[in-house]
Amino acid sequence: MLIINFMTQQEFELAPRYRGYHLVTNEILKHLPPLPQTGILHLFIKHTSAALSINENADPSVRVDFESVMNKIVPENESCYTHTLEGSDDMPAHAKSSLIGNSITVPVTNGRLNLGTWQGIYLCEFRNHGGARRIVATIAG
Amino acid sequence: MLIINFMTQQEFELAPRYRGYHLVTNEILKHLPPLPQTGILHLFIKHTSAALSINENADPSVRVDFESVMNKIVPENESCYTHTLEGSDDMPAHAKSSLIGNSITVPVTNGRLNLGTWQGIYLCEFRNHGGARRIVATIAG
Amino acid sequence: MLIINFMTQQEFELAPRYRGYHLVTNEILKHLPPLPQTGILHLFIKHTSAALSINENADPSVRVDFESVMNKIVPENESCYTHTLEGSDDMPAHAKSSLIGNSITVPVTNGRLNLGTWQGIYLCEFRNHGGARRIVATIAG
Repeated sequence: MLIINFMTQQEFELAPRYRGYHLVTNEILKHLPPLPQTGILHLFIKHTSAALSINENADPSVRVDFESVMNKIVPENESCYTHTLEGSDDMPAHAKSSLIGNSITVPVTNGRLNLGTWQGIYLCEFRNHGGARRIVATIAG
Repeated sequence: MLIINFMTQQEFELAPRYRGYHLVTNEILKHLPPLPQTGILHLFIKHTSAALSINENADPSVRVDFESVMNKIVPENESCYTHTLEGSDDMPAHAKSSLIGNSITVPVTNGRLNLGTWQGIYLCEFRNHGGARRIVATIAG
Repeated sequence: MLIINFMTQQEFELAPRYRGYHLVTNEILKHLPPLPQTGILHLFIKHTSAALSINENADPSVRVDFESVMNKIVPENESCYTHTLEGSDDMPAHAKSSLIGNSITVPVTNGRLNLGTWQGIYLCEFRNHGGARRIVATIAG
């Protein structure tokens, strides 16, 4: 199938959220133009103390437990930390951002995100007061 | 080099596997159409308790140790977990899925995956009984 | 916006670095052709004991702490490891590579990488003596 492709880009902000894991699939879709029949959506967060991921969209207890799990993996106030000037949540936020990742790529099929039944897009906010987070969406189709 | 691009997509299932880390490069290639001269392959798993990764393709002991390493990073039956109804392997599986990631992107060069000598594609199965896993492959070239 | 796309690829080596986290944004840009007005850059490291990530580009203490954090998450010389023939840094390097990830995708806007103010590209070298690391850069625009 040989087609002429297009690539479009949108930059926008997600509303500020408290520290934790937040389902933002619908908020992101509201910022996007119509999606192509076949393509990919790349979402990139322009910050080093937050992340994007894809995970369970139904039971909110999963998102609660994510906060506990990640805090155990990267605890605050470890004696080995040297990057401490920006608060006890800052260095753990940087580490979590690289562990989860600052971008996701999602297939687009028949003009829609081709997610599994139980999949949604997470904004992972690792700072206590992160503020609005800036996203670049690139659509290739 | 200005060329007319194409984008194709295949959705398929990987055979069910037991909990652990499995080399699936060849099984995935069997589901794909001929690859372009220059491009990328995006593979997306439509589940929240499994992951895709790229790692060592030679010594099976690496895949054995991956299971130990990841179980230490995200243990089962932690007292802080609230999402426990689907089994002790379920919440850890969600966390591992976001830590490893549910998609990979691989360069395609001269019609082949441009992997390093020691690289292969892993299906990371985090559930005790995960069943067949659904993949969306998008090829842009 | 319907445009004719192009896709180009460059394969190159990053200079060898010691174990740790290294800012390589400028070294990578030197290997790339002019970037498109709108597009994405995909960077893929052809190794299973190193990774690419995006994180803090200003304060070097973040990169120092990354080494401590990741060594706590995946310690060396755990009694459960069976893949030990290639040195005590080898199996942890494989695990870190899948946790951080071996590729990144960055949006390109107005002919430049569209990174946040504080974002840079990290080469994460997990081996004590990793040598030069081979990268495949694919640019779609």
